Amino acid sequence: MNQLQDTAEKIRTMEIRGAGRIASAAATAIHDYVKNLDAETIQEFDDKVQKAAKILVNTRPTAVSLPNAVWMSVKHSKTNVDDAREEIINNANRFIKQADYALENIGKIGSKRIQDGDVIMTHCNSHAALSAITTAFEQGKNISVITTESRPRKQGLLNIKHLNDYNIPTTYIVDSAVRSCMKNVDKVIVGADAISVNGALINKIGTSQLALAAHESRVNLLVAAETYKFSPSTIQGEMIEIEDRPTDEVINPDELRDLPYVEVKNPAFDVTPAEYIDLIITDAGVIPPSMAYFIIKEYLGWELGDID
Amino acid sequence: MNQLQDTAEKIRTMEIRGAGRIASAAATAIHDYVKNLDAETIQEFDDKVQKAAKILVNTRPTAVSLPNAVWMSVKHSKTNVDDAREEIINNANRFIKQADYALENIGKIGSKRIQDGDVIMTHCNSHAALSAITTAFEQGKNISVITTESRPRKQGLLNIKHLNDYNIPTTYIVDSAVRSCMKNVDKVIVGADAISVNGALINKIGTSQLALAAHESRVNLLVAAETYKFSPSTIQGEMIEIEDRPTDEVINPDELRDLPYVEVKNPAFDVTPAEYIDLIITDAGVIPPSMAYFIIKEYLGWELGDID
Amino acid sequence: MNQLQDTAEKIRTMEIRGAGRIASAAATAIHDYVKNLDAETIQEFDDKVQKAAKILVNTRPTAVSLPNAVWMSVKHSKTNVDDAREEIINNANRFIKQADYALENIGKIGSKRIQDGDVIMTHCNSHAALSAITTAFEQGKNISVITTESRPRKQGLLNIKHLNDYNIPTTYIVDSAVRSCMKNVDKVIVGADAISVNGALINKIGTSQLALAAHESRVNLLVAAETYKFSPSTIQGEMIEIEDRPTDEVINPDELRDLPYVEVKNPAFDVTPAEYIDLIITDAGVIPPSMAYFIIKEYLGWELGDID
Amino acid sequence: MNQLQDTAEKIRTMEIRGAGRIASAAATAIHDYVKNLDAETIQEFDDKVQKAAKILVNTRPTAVSLPNAVWMSVKHSKTNVDDAREEIINNANRFIKQADYALENIGKIGSKRIQDGDVIMTHCNSHAALSAITTAFEQGKNISVITTESRPRKQGLLNIKHLNDYNIPTTYIVDSAVRSCMKNVDKVIVGADAISVNGALINKIGTSQLALAAHESRVNLLVAAETYKFSPSTIQGEMIEIEDRPTDEVINPDELRDLPYVEVKNPAFDVTPAEYIDLIITDAGVIPPSMAYFIIKEYLGWELGDID
Amino acid sequence: MNQLQDTAEKIRTMEIRGAGRIASAAATAIHDYVKNLDAETIQEFDDKVQKAAKILVNTRPTAVSLPNAVWMSVKHSKTNVDDAREEIINNANRFIKQADYALENIGKIGSKRIQDGDVIMTHCNSHAALSAITTAFEQGKNISVITTESRPRKQGLLNIKHLNDYNIPTTYIVDSAVRSCMKNVDKVIVGADAISVNGALINKIGTSQLALAAHESRVNLLVAAETYKFSPSTIQGEMIEIEDRPTDEVINPDELRDLPYVEVKNPAFDVTPAEYIDLIITDAGVIPPSMAYFIIKEYLGWELGDID
Amino acid sequence: MNQLQDTAEKIRTMEIRGAGRIASAAATAIHDYVKNLDAETIQEFDDKVQKAAKILVNTRPTAVSLPNAVWMSVKHSKTNVDDAREEIINNANRFIKQADYALENIGKIGSKRIQDGDVIMTHCNSHAALSAITTAFEQGKNISVITTESRPRKQGLLNIKHLNDYNIPTTYIVDSAVRSCMKNVDKVIVGADAISVNGALINKIGTSQLALAAHESRVNLLVAAETYKFSPSTIQGEMIEIEDRPTDEVINPDELRDLPYVEVKNPAFDVTPAEYIDLIITDAGVIPPSMAYFIIKEYLGWELGDID
Repeated sequence: MNQLQDTAEKIRTMEIRGAGRIASAAATAIHDYVKNLDAETIQEFDDKVQKAAKILVNTRPTAVSLPNAVWMSVKHSKTNVDDAREEIINNANRFIKQADYALENIGKIGSKRIQDGDVIMTHCNSHAALSAITTAFEQGKNISVITTESRPRKQGLLNIKHLNDYNIPTTYIVDSAVRSCMKNVDKVIVGADAISVNGALINKIGTSQLALAAHESRVNLLVAAETYKFSPSTIQGEMIEIEDRPTDEVINPDELRDLPYVEVKNPAFDVTPAEYIDLIITDAGVIPPSMAYFIIKEYLGWELGDID
Repeated sequence: MNQLQDTAEKIRTMEIRGAGRIASAAATAIHDYVKNLDAETIQEFDDKVQKAAKILVNTRPTAVSLPNAVWMSVKHSKTNVDDAREEIINNANRFIKQADYALENIGKIGSKRIQDGDVIMTHCNSHAALSAITTAFEQGKNISVITTESRPRKQGLLNIKHLNDYNIPTTYIVDSAVRSCMKNVDKVIVGADAISVNGALINKIGTSQLALAAHESRVNLLVAAETYKFSPSTIQGEMIEIEDRPTDEVINPDELRDLPYVEVKNPAFDVTPAEYIDLIITDAGVIPPSMAYFIIKEYLGWELGDID
Repeated sequence: MNQLQDTAEKIRTMEIRGAGRIASAAATAIHDYVKNLDAETIQEFDDKVQKAAKILVNTRPTAVSLPNAVWMSVKHSKTNVDDAREEIINNANRFIKQADYALENIGKIGSKRIQDGDVIMTHCNSHAALSAITTAFEQGKNISVITTESRPRKQGLLNIKHLNDYNIPTTYIVDSAVRSCMKNVDKVIVGADAISVNGALINKIGTSQLALAAHESRVNLLVAAETYKFSPSTIQGEMIEIEDRPTDEVINPDELRDLPYVEVKNPAFDVTPAEYIDLIITDAGVIPPSMAYFIIKEYLGWELGDID
Repeated sequence: MNQLQDTAEKIRTMEIRGAGRIASAAATAIHDYVKNLDAETIQEFDDKVQKAAKILVNTRPTAVSLPNAVWMSVKHSKTNVDDAREEIINNANRFIKQADYALENIGKIGSKRIQDGDVIMTHCNSHAALSAITTAFEQGKNISVITTESRPRKQGLLNIKHLNDYNIPTTYIVDSAVRSCMKNVDKVIVGADAISVNGALINKIGTSQLALAAHESRVNLLVAAETYKFSPSTIQGEMIEIEDRPTDEVINPDELRDLPYVEVKNPAFDVTPAEYIDLIITDAGVIPPSMAYFIIKEYLGWELGDID
Repeated sequence: MNQLQDTAEKIRTMEIRGAGRIASAAATAIHDYVKNLDAETIQEFDDKVQKAAKILVNTRPTAVSLPNAVWMSVKHSKTNVDDAREEIINNANRFIKQADYALENIGKIGSKRIQDGDVIMTHCNSHAALSAITTAFEQGKNISVITTESRPRKQGLLNIKHLNDYNIPTTYIVDSAVRSCMKNVDKVIVGADAISVNGALINKIGTSQLALAAHESRVNLLVAAETYKFSPSTIQGEMIEIEDRPTDEVINPDELRDLPYVEVKNPAFDVTPAEYIDLIITDAGVIPPSMAYFIIKEYLGWELGDID
Repeated sequence: MNQLQDTAEKIRTMEIRGAGRIASAAATAIHDYVKNLDAETIQEFDDKVQKAAKILVNTRPTAVSLPNAVWMSVKHSKTNVDDAREEIINNANRFIKQADYALENIGKIGSKRIQDGDVIMTHCNSHAALSAITTAFEQGKNISVITTESRPRKQGLLNIKHLNDYNIPTTYIVDSAVRSCMKNVDKVIVGADAISVNGALINKIGTSQLALAAHESRVNLLVAAETYKFSPSTIQGEMIEIEDRPTDEVINPDELRDLPYVEVKNPAFDVTPAEYIDLIITDAGVIPPSMAYFIIKEYLGWELGDID
């Protein structure tokens, strides 16, 4: 339990970040927790598992991959502790394996959309987006990348290290320079925290500004999104909650001392409408954003007509 | 000369920043330099003044107010040192006084465009824009402000202090949150580094993203710009140079060690097209951006037909 | 038969109006007509039922729910009068029940898209749209409504009565004030008379102006539409006919006396393109307009490839 | 005085309506009032005239032609009652004559923009817009008109009578049918209540919806506006107030009885941004909206730099 | 083999042109080639067929109907030469028959979207688009056509002959006149060389300009596309290659003599984004462009999840 | 007279083409005609000159430079033949000299808007546009050009010869490839046949398509236009007539034999709205299109208020 709470804490503080990594970490935490879980009855076992699951799910409200990973892992059909334990361990292992396989597939598919000579802009630190970029570079395509800083947490610093390891020429800019640099960009590729039934993208704050500037200049915006990033509950009308994160990510609290009329707002994500998205690259293939329901139906098992 | 070079250095390092403040500082530096300038002949005097002028003008390539302030100050019609000195001192004093008067007038005029209940977004630290906002607040209008951080130099910190002094409720956001917060904004008010003959605005990097997001949501964008911010040379086709500033403003050089494939780009300004600007509030009154030539002709004395 | 013709007349004169209510009334009329229908042979029975069906279907050309209700009711597989009568009565009952259930489901699903504090604009008198609004209000969300007058028949008067019964603060405006008031609106919710395979909405005249003004200001437009509002024949290329209604709905004929050069045009519906629609809230869940074919296929049983 | 108050009342109740007619009526009222005004001293005379002027000016807040007419009439440079009386009478006569001449010139100029075969849409009842239309028809151009009803006061009824008198084929539609009919329209021509320095048009509620729908379909929007419709004070930042008129224009108060949660809003005008306007046809010639300042400067005598 | 190479050559030189005709010709070439093919073993037979198939497929890179026709024809499940030959002959016959049937169905379905009085613009020479137009005319609808010249190969000349044979009034314009004539157009109907999974249209160079001009004026753009024009490999991320054709199609090489600084570029196709397309008329029915995947899945047998 | 009629014929048949060249040729024709004109009385002289002027003016309806050149040349204030002859000769010489000077000035000013590395698209054969391009190249800027073919008369062939003479790398494309190539273009520069008071550009057919495609991709469109290309009569509401030229420019009449249902339309110019134009480069300096009236007033001597 300590280990699971530790994982939960790391997700909450964004030591573990990125929707895909969060999902894998959560599945691993479930796996490890269940492996050595003491429980005398299946009832006790289920109660403890549900409690553990909720601890994980409640750490970050926006990333849909987290509840998907947790609920897909803890779902079991058994009536005794050992069988249930085994099924949950298998579920978690399968999810983790699929998540890896998803990244590889997105790399393979997404790389085909990248052409020799392309300048690619990205935002925040998305393993899926980077997978498409590095795969294309390894295919011998002569590409370069522009990465934003991605305030407040400066995930751009992770991007420049990752891309430098691949020897990919990369330019680092502040978030305000996105539109100014767009005239030299051939494609924008970003990841996803969640995708709703109408193809809207929920991703790191600032993504919708990249999308707007790309749209203004008719630069294609590609979203790299594992199938588990699609949000089933949106077909029932649920809205995806945008997490407001602690303000000390944005500003040193000392700066606010003696400024009673000042407050800080730190929305962690924003919503990019489907009309600014050209393609979504999933591990199952390429779709236009308006086909999001198809992924929800075929890959996540929810259907229109499932009304609560 | 030391003092003038000190001012030049402060302009270059942005210790003195903001086009209006730069202009006043430059006029003051000319004033002080000329006041005690030793010169035996008018020729020697003029040479020294020209040299001093060029030191100031060359510190920042983008802000048009700097050359306007310098050249309007040093222009004289005299043939002896003392008379020339006096004329230049008078020129500089007049310019400084007009600059103050400009801010007050912009405050008076701009405040009329602000209505009770307005939420106003601003970017970077513009004395002219703030003048309109604080004047409106002092008229008893119940307004609030959203200021961006304005990376890389975080001029937003100056805004929150200034606005807090006036007791104006202010929210501080990262630059990436502009579009996300735009749905709650009634007006965007920004300053100007330069305005070209076709009404395009050159201002702090990121301004064109605010303008784009405002235009997308049909939020009015007002530019507060003193008449000396308009660029006469653009009627002869000159383009306004965008300054690339040192990269250590953006990233600690240590972060780049061992990253040979990474470079940093730090354009200090961007260009907002006239179609995203609703009004320009000058010290002479309100104009649509397409009337920029009229200001250049009536207030700066340049005309179509003055071909080099 | 008198009763059925009475219903037909009420539909024609718009005493019964609103696509959902028309559909239920038509199903009820079929139910009641068939219940006591004298017929010696199944042939005679079928002839009479077809004739009755056509009387109903021909009253209003635009509303697709009317033929759907009629043809889904009168379809039977029996060879004797009593069995056929029973099947038709069951069909009609089922349709009516589903129509009620549709409204309730749309209320439940649509209410999730409405947030505390929302100002919602609506047009004409749509039970489905009102169901989402009143459900959200009953959940304790503090919302208010702006309703258009909806000339020529002023269905806005029905809205203010309905919403007043729920104690929902409501503002009544003329149709020309839509764009002027849009700056204060958070969402537009309207109903549907028909939805075509490409997601275009056919609804009360003026709807496309609301949609255009909402799109201009990036206010979301939600369409509340029962699954039986989708038009199967559009997948075969059929265009939905726009009904021109009597001109005395618009102007007192006395006003036109002695004005030989004047004519009046009274199109009852207009077409809103899919690009101005954010979501369609159906009783089966939420879809983007481009997924209309999926509803036609899964809920109405028509498929691509069914070529006449 | 009774007569002047009677005119003021007729302006307030819109018995006299239309910015041009209001202006002429106000000038006439001043003329008639001054003609027989008893005053022993110039001081008493001026006080009475100012009081009368304010009665007129305060009747309608939006129409800029009203204060222009009044203040241009009452301005005098004399020191005795009889001379002042004579000057004011002359001012008023000149204004009235110019207003007539303005309509004729707008007809002459505007008719050149109308081509054989054009279908022209108009809104509300503008003498200037109608002047262009009827002049073109009298030149033998085979044109027709679509007029909106223009709720709440149905000025469309005035249009159909006026156009029928000229034998011009005219179609009458409800305001909600504007976008639906736009596909058959070649040009939209409307009048103006006021035009601001940035070329924005203030006109009868609903005008901005016509403009938006015209812009969407790339149908040219022409504004017929006398030079006295331009608003000088907008160059000093003043915003033009939008009049909220009595709600019984919109709805019979009986309809609101027992509806405590319902209110009615009746804004009489709306604002059309300059980007939706192709040309303004003035009595001095044709200008693009961005040249509005030129009219204010050359024809109304106000300049940039005239700061209060 | 000579005959097949002859067909391949005619496809390459565009003596056979138009995606549908190319597909039928290729299927016929396979049919004829296989019919008399000498082969002693199934291995030899298969090798020869594959070689022949590749000769055909490699002639034109862009038209997806060509590989579809070839690979759908040569696919067989037999182990001896005669059975394989028979299956391939049957495949080819079936494909050719479906292609004919496709044209007829598109004519039937597409004609319903054409209304009496419509002026239809078309580009290049598409049998599918013409099928919709001539079917509508034969139904008695009074329509006319504007055809572009379609440089460089002037397929417009084929259109005017074809349409003249049907007595359909047709106007011939240069490609540069498209936007100028758009104001008189009611619908644009074009064919397709390929359609990608996100609904983008690949068609004759210039198509995207018609689409852009139509979109600007809100004229509907309909694409007539057989189901075999949809590109399965795009769901795996493949991009459709745009063929650069010989420059002597554009300019007489003599004109280029002594012009060493001049080159000619002759891209044969361009890409029209889905947002400029209102409907795709297929032989299976009408779909919005975003439903392209559905056609690929239901009619061509490829699915998301089929990752190479 | 023969020589003048010869010039008129060459203008009519477009042997002399391009608005600037037409204007100079017309001024020269007037000059030469007047030089040796036999006339006994000033009345006879004036009659002959007016007749000659009209012959020239009537050859091409669209190009405003033609009547400007003619009427500015023939205007005289003398009462005897010799003095009148001398004044007209002087007028013509001055106009021709200014036209040359205009080209040089436009080259000087326009070249400043061209940056090292720019790819510039142009259309038709404009001396003014080419002057800006070749001047920039001669300044050492490394630029290249894409020229359209410019059907029907293929002025692109003139461009490639002219640019090849300057060693400027140039690509030749068909008119349909404009949008397809726009993604590689940095600026579009075109000439003008006429510019109206609202900044609309009348230029060679196809120009508005370049402008639309440039606007779509946010590529700047620059218009190179001598001050004598601005149309004074548009301030009085006159519309600029678009010339329909002979159809044998488009198609060999033989191709039309036996095609009774086919007609050809050959509009020689189209209208580009001001909103698609970023700058107009005149010989007097750079203006935004909305300042066109200023040129008409300051450089052509017509004013608002000059009502016929």
